[in-house]
Amino acid sequence: MELHELIQSLKTDGGKIVMVVSDGIGGLPLQPGGPTELEAANTPNLDALAAKGVSGMSTPVLPGVTPGSGPGHLGLFGYDPLVFQIGRGVLEAAGIAFPVGPNDVCIRCNFCTVDENGLITDRRAGRIPTEESSEVVKLLKAVKIPGIEVFVEPVKEHRFVVVFRGEGLGGNVADTDPQRTGAKPLDPVAKDEESKKTAEVAKEFFNQAVQILKGQPKANCLTMRGFAKKPNLPSYEELYGLKAAAIAVYPMYKGLASLAGMELVGAPANLDEEVEVLKENWDKYDFFFLHWKYTDSRGEDGDFEAKRKMVEELDRVLPGITALLGENDCICVTGDHSTPAKMASHSFHPVPTVVYSNLCRTDSCQKYGETEANDKGGLGHFQAIHLMPLLMAHAGRLGKFGA
Amino acid sequence: MELHELIQSLKTDGGKIVMVVSDGIGGLPLQPGGPTELEAANTPNLDALAAKGVSGMSTPVLPGVTPGSGPGHLGLFGYDPLVFQIGRGVLEAAGIAFPVGPNDVCIRCNFCTVDENGLITDRRAGRIPTEESSEVVKLLKAVKIPGIEVFVEPVKEHRFVVVFRGEGLGGNVADTDPQRTGAKPLDPVAKDEESKKTAEVAKEFFNQAVQILKGQPKANCLTMRGFAKKPNLPSYEELYGLKAAAIAVYPMYKGLASLAGMELVGAPANLDEEVEVLKENWDKYDFFFLHWKYTDSRGEDGDFEAKRKMVEELDRVLPGITALLGENDCICVTGDHSTPAKMASHSFHPVPTVVYSNLCRTDSCQKYGETEANDKGGLGHFQAIHLMPLLMAHAGRLGKFGA
Repeated sequence: MELHELIQSLKTDGGKIVMVVSDGIGGLPLQPGGPTELEAANTPNLDALAAKGVSGMSTPVLPGVTPGSGPGHLGLFGYDPLVFQIGRGVLEAAGIAFPVGPNDVCIRCNFCTVDENGLITDRRAGRIPTEESSEVVKLLKAVKIPGIEVFVEPVKEHRFVVVFRGEGLGGNVADTDPQRTGAKPLDPVAKDEESKKTAEVAKEFFNQAVQILKGQPKANCLTMRGFAKKPNLPSYEELYGLKAAAIAVYPMYKGLASLAGMELVGAPANLDEEVEVLKENWDKYDFFFLHWKYTDSRGEDGDFEAKRKMVEELDRVLPGITALLGENDCICVTGDHSTPAKMASHSFHPVPTVVYSNLCRTDSCQKYGETEANDKGGLGHFQAIHLMPLLMAHAGRLGKFGA
Repeated sequence: MELHELIQSLKTDGGKIVMVVSDGIGGLPLQPGGPTELEAANTPNLDALAAKGVSGMSTPVLPGVTPGSGPGHLGLFGYDPLVFQIGRGVLEAAGIAFPVGPNDVCIRCNFCTVDENGLITDRRAGRIPTEESSEVVKLLKAVKIPGIEVFVEPVKEHRFVVVFRGEGLGGNVADTDPQRTGAKPLDPVAKDEESKKTAEVAKEFFNQAVQILKGQPKANCLTMRGFAKKPNLPSYEELYGLKAAAIAVYPMYKGLASLAGMELVGAPANLDEEVEVLKENWDKYDFFFLHWKYTDSRGEDGDFEAKRKMVEELDRVLPGITALLGENDCICVTGDHSTPAKMASHSFHPVPTVVYSNLCRTDSCQKYGETEANDKGGLGHFQAIHLMPLLMAHAGRLGKFGA
């Protein structure tokens, strides 16, 4: 029996679950023997949670493997990132929180410029400013293809997303970007039988788009890359029986949550507003994914002190979250990967994770941090895909397997 | 996506990696509560490495499974020993460092004696001394089979290796040893379609060999066992992008390394010479496998004190190895399995392992030993096949998975 089949067969009613994801929270000491960002931070509330909860180290994908945001979150949501891969087009669509459906093919598009012979002169249309490219994108909404719903959405500068929605569209079409100037955009070519219709639709889109763009001074052509359908994820409702809400500021994480069938609630602009949204929606959902971005951002900046402060920000709002918990509810604080300021990038290091509910077997951890969770964590080292079953269990939501 | 596919898709350039394998290094206390061989040893250099590095416990195959040298090393090299199995003939060939190629069928042969009717009188030819059997082996090099390259190499006493090299040779042929005296050697019988040609070649080899051996006083016949082709291992170069060198004294470990496509460098006769060979070749390779045999040998002898001394020998030469490490390089000290003197045999116990690079998340281990690595090791317990990805990551050689 496979993991998802097992969970589905055991799921039952129980308490609420709050999964707080502090992006890239794991870190490294700047000096051997020194504290990590998390250990350097003053975190009385996270420490109190660790003291009464149970900690462990989460391996996002596999030992040594550094995940991007997509695989990192998929793992936390309980989908094996090696099985459920998110194509580039879908990730781009997720990144603007476009609600990708099962019949959608998503494509990352670039505006480019071509000369009178149709040869590319600039593959990125001079990185045309977003406010201008958004206007050009609007023009492309005029493209009509019979039997296909077409979405065209701006992303940033020369980048935009096209989504074809319809029956019988495969996601396996080659990129049309020739990867050099002085060449025409390539024809979209299907790489399998199921994607022939998609290639035809893409060709038709391209032809109409070129007519529309004719005479545009800054962006008179386009290339299409990363054709992809969404991975066939069972939704949180199907898999866990959880009515799930996602609370995030950044579109990417909303997009990833919506792939798992979570509902996007509120429109918070900062962490305090995220907690407000959580309060407002507390009675309406069983599961909450709350995403805190800036531990990752400051880690990526290579700024140890700033990352430490972002940890303290999370600590500051924690009481507002834990105050909501009822007797049978479960809370978890974790990250999708580590982003040590020392490396100024995502890394492969395991992520300290703390879980609390009245069913947890409290371990001897007194603080939330890498060393403490590693040395004394009652959850040991575990793969991120096993976190959701652990949270379900801690919320009394997993029945007995076998008699 | 499968592990090797993942690693191959993420591999990138980075620092050098040194994997020091102290064979059978894991041990057991002689008395409950006492130290293991490793813990009893005085190892200031290994302890210093553990203090600044990150430790963990490596499970060679699966919990409870005691590996032989073949599966033990395959696991460390990152090949799942349950997937990539080394047939007996190949292991025998590896044991004399014969460079087994993809078109080779390897066979463990025994000299035997037969009476005038061809019935076996001694299945091991009286354990004929190696110096004598080596001379008889030389005679067999006269066997010629059209279209097939034939290698005949001595091993020890009555044992020798035959290798057939050629196109279309399957490795699935039944043993010809009837397992009793008073019977003739069996005909080699193919167990599948692809191995029919091999069976014919083996029959021809046998016939010519018997003619050559006629009249030999001590060994006038042979049996053939363990027909096998090498497992289809992707090489270190293909899999990890590593130009890999193996430094070992014993032929078996050279043979195992050469199955993984490592180059055998130098001809060291002891540990000091192995370190010399490492120095001499430092600039020429990305990866070094350095094998230290005697921790296993003395464990097999059941000699706790002698094994402890062999650990101290390794500790003595360690500074000569670590002195070579550049800023981005990575070193690991581990074993292919445990060989507790208490058991005088290989065992299933996890193997203490330490990794150091400037990317390691230093844990609270202060010494290199079983208890310390188990209680505080930042790598936790891991399967040996995940060690190579971990070392790649620590040497900055694995890119990000997904965006």
